[in-house]
This record gives sequence, C-alpha cells and structure tokens, in this order.
Amino acid sequence: MASVTTSQTSTIKIWANSGDSHFLEPDDLWRNNVAKRYADLMPYAVKDPDGRWETVHVDGQSFRRKLPGQTQQEFLGASQRAPGSNDSRLRLVDLDHEGIWAEVVFPSLGLWNASFRNPEALRAAITVSNDWAKSEIMDISPRLLATAQVSMLSITDAIAELQRTASMGFRSVFLPTTPPAHTPDYNHDEWEPFWAAAAEAKMVIAFHIGTDPVDMMAGEVIGITYRGPGGALLNYTETTFSGHRATMKMVAPGALDRHPNLKVLVSEGGATWVPFLADRMTEGYRQHAMMVRPKLSRTPKEILYSQVFASFQHDETAIAAVTAMGYQNVMWGSDYPHLEGTYGHTQETLHHLFDGVDAATQARITTGSFNELFPGVEQHPTMLA
Amino acid sequence: MASVTTSQTSTIKIWANSGDSHFLEPDDLWRNNVAKRYADLMPYAVKDPDGRWETVHVDGQSFRRKLPGQTQQEFLGASQRAPGSNDSRLRLVDLDHEGIWAEVVFPSLGLWNASFRNPEALRAAITVSNDWAKSEIMDISPRLLATAQVSMLSITDAIAELQRTASMGFRSVFLPTTPPAHTPDYNHDEWEPFWAAAAEAKMVIAFHIGTDPVDMMAGEVIGITYRGPGGALLNYTETTFSGHRATMKMVAPGALDRHPNLKVLVSEGGATWVPFLADRMTEGYRQHAMMVRPKLSRTPKEILYSQVFASFQHDETAIAAVTAMGYQNVMWGSDYPHLEGTYGHTQETLHHLFDGVDAATQARITTGSFNELFPGVEQHPTMLA
Repeated sequence: MASVTTSQTSTIKIWANSGDSHFLEPDDLWRNNVAKRYADLMPYAVKDPDGRWETVHVDGQSFRRKLPGQTQQEFLGASQRAPGSNDSRLRLVDLDHEGIWAEVVFPSLGLWNASFRNPEALRAAITVSNDWAKSEIMDISPRLLATAQVSMLSITDAIAELQRTASMGFRSVFLPTTPPAHTPDYNHDEWEPFWAAAAEAKMVIAFHIGTDPVDMMAGEVIGITYRGPGGALLNYTETTFSGHRATMKMVAPGALDRHPNLKVLVSEGGATWVPFLADRMTEGYRQHAMMVRPKLSRTPKEILYSQVFASFQHDETAIAAVTAMGYQNVMWGSDYPHLEGTYGHTQETLHHLFDGVDAATQARITTGSFNELFPGVEQHPTMLA
Repeated sequence: MASVTTSQTSTIKIWANSGDSHFLEPDDLWRNNVAKRYADLMPYAVKDPDGRWETVHVDGQSFRRKLPGQTQQEFLGASQRAPGSNDSRLRLVDLDHEGIWAEVVFPSLGLWNASFRNPEALRAAITVSNDWAKSEIMDISPRLLATAQVSMLSITDAIAELQRTASMGFRSVFLPTTPPAHTPDYNHDEWEPFWAAAAEAKMVIAFHIGTDPVDMMAGEVIGITYRGPGGALLNYTETTFSGHRATMKMVAPGALDRHPNLKVLVSEGGATWVPFLADRMTEGYRQHAMMVRPKLSRTPKEILYSQVFASFQHDETAIAAVTAMGYQNVMWGSDYPHLEGTYGHTQETLHHLFDGVDAATQARITTGSFNELFPGVEQHPTMLA
C-alpha cells in the first residue's frame, strides 16, 4: 500500500473485475413496455408547478415527496455523471479507461419492487426489465453480467423468473437485503424451493446493500435511518448491516448447508465483516448449542468462508481478510457509476490497495474470486491468473 | 493457534485481564435499600399459582410474562452456575482457577433502567446499586472494576452520578447500546455535557452489547429479534450490531474527536468489527463529503483506532485484527459467568488463541489494552508486560 505517485509499479494499469456496478434503465421502461392494462400501475411522478414537491404514483397508490434540494441534486448528479451509466456501449469505454474488465450489473428500477401490491403487475414489470437487460446490457458485451430481477410478492413467481432468466444466460439473481413486509423473511421455510431452484440453475444469490424495503407511503426516505448530527455518515455506515443479516438468514436456518453449491454475493458492503461474522456465528452456534436449531453439518465459519463472497471498494483491511484471516472470497467492486465507488479514481484506488501486495493476493481479489463465482467469463489478457 | 493438548506450551497457565464480566446483584437489592416512598416502584414479580406465568411490576406499571420453559431454565441456570457469579470472594477463587486477573464487571439490575418512568425513583435505585457495587465488589478486591450505572431518564442525573462514582473510584460507566425511547440518541447534542464530564473525570464509556432497551410492556422479550428457523443463532449474532452503532454515534457527530482523551469500551461484541467499521466510516466520510456534517479533524479510522476498545471471547480473527489490520485496542474478555463466555474452558480458549502467537501480541490482547484503558491496575506477577 505504498504511495501511488512515487512507486514505479503505479504506472502499470491494474485490471480488475468488479462485483458491484449499476445501470440506469430508462425511467419509462416499464410504462412503455408492459401490457396496456398494467401501464398505469407502473411508477411515475408528477411534479408540482413550483418544482418543490412531486406526487408519485405506483400500483394504484400515491404519495407526496419533496424534490431533492440543491446539495441532494448535486449528490445525485455526481452519481450519474459517468457517460456509460445508462448506455452499455459508452459504459465499455468508461470501463476500459478505469481498468475494469467484467462486472456484475445491478438494476436501478428494482428499488420499486417493494412498492407493488399487485403480483401480476410486478411480474409484468420484471419480465420487461429482464428482457431489456438481456438485449441492452448482456448482449452488448459478455463483460456485463446483469443480475436478474424477481418478484418479491410471490416466491412462486420468483422461482419461475429465476428459471427463465437462467435459461437466458443470467448468472445471478438480485435479492434485496430484506424482503418486503408481507413476504416471509429469508430464514423461513417458504424460501427453500427458491434456494433449491437457484442451486439447480447455478444462479448466484446477489444481495446489494442499501436495498431494504422502504415504505414510501409512510413517508420513509431511502437511505435515511438517522437524523441529526453525523446523520449522513451514520446512514452510509448503517447500510452494511442488512447485508450481514441477509447472509446470517441463509446460514442459520441451514439453507447454505443444505445446498453446498449455492453461492451468495453481498455487493458494496465491504468484505472484512465476513471473517468477523464467521467467528461470531460460530461462537453462538457452539455456546448456545442447547437453544440452536437446526443443527448444521459444518460450522457457520466453514459455510461463510466457502459459499459467501463479498465486494468492497476502498477498504484497506480487505487485503488482510485474505492474507491473515483466511477468507478467500474477497472481491473488489467499483460501484460504478456511484459516488461511493471508484469512478474517476479506480487506478489510484487499485494501486493504493495492491502496490506492495503479493501477486497471488492481488489476483485473488481483482479476478480470482469473481472467476470462481462466475466461471468462464473471459479475462483481459494482462490480468493476473 | 496450535492444538491445545499436544503443545508443550499448553501446560503453562496464561493469565489475562478481562474486559467483560457480570455480577448478579441480590434480586431485592433495590426494594430493600431505596427510600420507603420508592420501594414499591422497584421491579418485582409475582408468580401465578401454576408457575407458568408471572406478573411483573415496575415503577407503577405491570405486565404479564411467561416463565422460562425447561430449555430456557437450563440455559439461564448454566449462565449462573459459577459459584462466584453473585459473591465477590468466591469470584476471586473462580478467577484464579480460570487464569483471569482483573476484570470489568457489569451490573445485572441495570437492564431495568429502560423500564422506569419516574426519574427520582430511578435515581434512588441507581445510587443504591453503585454504593453496593463499591462495598461488595470494588472494596473486596482491586481486581474487580465495577462499572458505574447512571440514569437513562435524565442526562443531568447521569452527569451527577458519573461524577459521584468517579470520586468513589469507579473507572468506567456502563451505558446501554441504545438509550430508551424518550431519551435523545447518542449522536445528539444533548449528550455533549455527559461526554465532556466523562473525559474530565477519566471515566471510560463502557457499552455492553445486548443492552438495547426492551419494551416489556409491549410484550418484547430481551434477546428476541428473530423467530423461526435459526432464530437462536440469529438472535445471538444480531446483538453485536448495536455495539457498532453506539460507537458510530460517538464518532460521526464528533464527540470522540472533540474529546481525544475520552475512551470507549464495547464489551462482548467481538473485536474484528472495529477495523471493518473504520474502513467503512472512512469511505463514507470521504465519498459522501458533500453531505457529511460535522467535519472531523481526524479520519473515522484514526478516531476508532485510538479511542475505541473492543472485547471478544473466542474469535480467532481478533489476533489478526492486531497483527495484520493495525488495530491495537483488542481486548480479551471472559464474559464470566455467562454461557457465551469461557467459564470452565478459559485456559483451553486462551491457549487455542495464543499458542504460536508472538509474545507482544499476546501481551497486548491479554493485558496491554486493558492496562492502557485502566492504568494503574496491578498485574499478576507472571503476566506478560
């Protein structure tokens, strides 16, 4: 982790795969493409004439919300400033410049999933999203691994769409870190057929932090848990915990134990939490044995270390999670094009992280974990094996 | 971390200070010792004749709760099986046997703090607790560092009791990981005079995980967040997150930055989370700079690494947090006499953790961090410097 500017190695471009990126679909994708009877149920917003508030309509419900103030507008604008944020061909230019080869691409419209009440309307929207991601992202380049969306209102629908998208070439399925209120939580038995279907279809379960359901009707705002002094920093930090919880809910009830080929990716939440969680869960599993059900065939640590992958952007400790804590499934991620990510300073970040680090560790984090999770994705010629 | 039974070094007794232990005060301590006008407000329970439910009375309120079933009774009994759990003299015998020298001792009655509504009644109860801890714990041995209790209903009362207990020789003040509902959260300005008083009095802020307020009137049960498959393991694991949050709330609004001599101990939540949180908060602080207020004079990582201490029991990765992540404030803790802790297998745990680890790292974790936080506590003669 030597200084970037003084080290000779810093002039060499480091190529990395990314376990975390985002695509901005067209705002009107759903309204323009679902069957006519569902079009009016798709989310849309009508601004007040004074431009300070808007009314949002989704699935027959409406709510009012304040439009972003100047600082928030700058913040949102900065997160969409990359030319390739909504265009796959321009995206490849950005990626080449940054030194990013293949990437896992999360949808942006997926955040509306928790606001639907009508399973048929949501199913229609999601089908449109996945067909569009296939033709406008995946078909543009094999480097772009779009995550499939599935309904959070019906596990049966989710299984059907998982299987359909797997047959279309999707490699992973995006799940929010917590299901919406009326859907069983991930530790409950209702999800077992979904986990079985994902294992069968070799679809990676891709959680992305910051995707807990938000009850916008009740005035909740995405990303706001804390208010008052330090609120923005508290809110940013808080998002990681639901990623830990989603993982816990697949370990504790035995889902990952029953399906040893099922793999989980937690994107953007950092990576050093996995060794921590592994020790903590293993302590609880052993010390609270008289209360713990079900029993597992492996320790939580063995399960987490072999089946859970985690992506980070800047975290210096992610290297030592591999080298000193034995957790091999650390994956770098750019979070392109978002502001929490490395767009505009990817090479600086990668050199800060890896200059002075042994080649095998660098290779594991920049490419190896990604390639183990998504075997067969072509590598950049200069990538470390 | 060699096997315990085969290593020659395993026959040497490892002595360690503990950043985490518990004392069971007499159930009727408060009722028997507060002024008569408050006695009936102190918590007490009346069992139903059939022994399956009880009615609990506290501060003029009442609620019904189910008595523990057989497994829960076994679980609770196991956590109180150590002869010294409620007797300081017997405790020293247990500690000598286990190889524990000095320890931070948390109160058990403190959990009722969030159930009071009457500030005077709570103040009376807390005064009794602290006077009792002074005479029955601290005065029995300088090895027993009882944590002071303070009111969570009035920050003014809390400051007065902090100052009184500091003058009595207490070295740390126990705070629950989250204040009760009607008290401002720790990131708010109302707490600033308390932080200033603690820094002035050299009192360590000692958070203990598992101490979020529980609304027993609303039927909430301590330690139960999840139900269903894997619930017990999920509930155990969950407790750690509120410790992270309590710490975040002292970093983000600048409390620790303004008081560089103020120190925080988070007990029983593990230690490897601190390097993780440090990277995450530093990423948020930098990447979300346009939203973050207040600005800090040091990075969150610098603040956490210098002012926050964390205790763990069994976590193997705690060693590498020191050696490979540069986080020096890792402290071992026994959690005596609880079931999550090492009572009955302390030497086995310490040898599993430290056999093969360099002496300086072992010394830092078993004694050095503790002695930095509580300077002047006498050491066992064989303790590593």
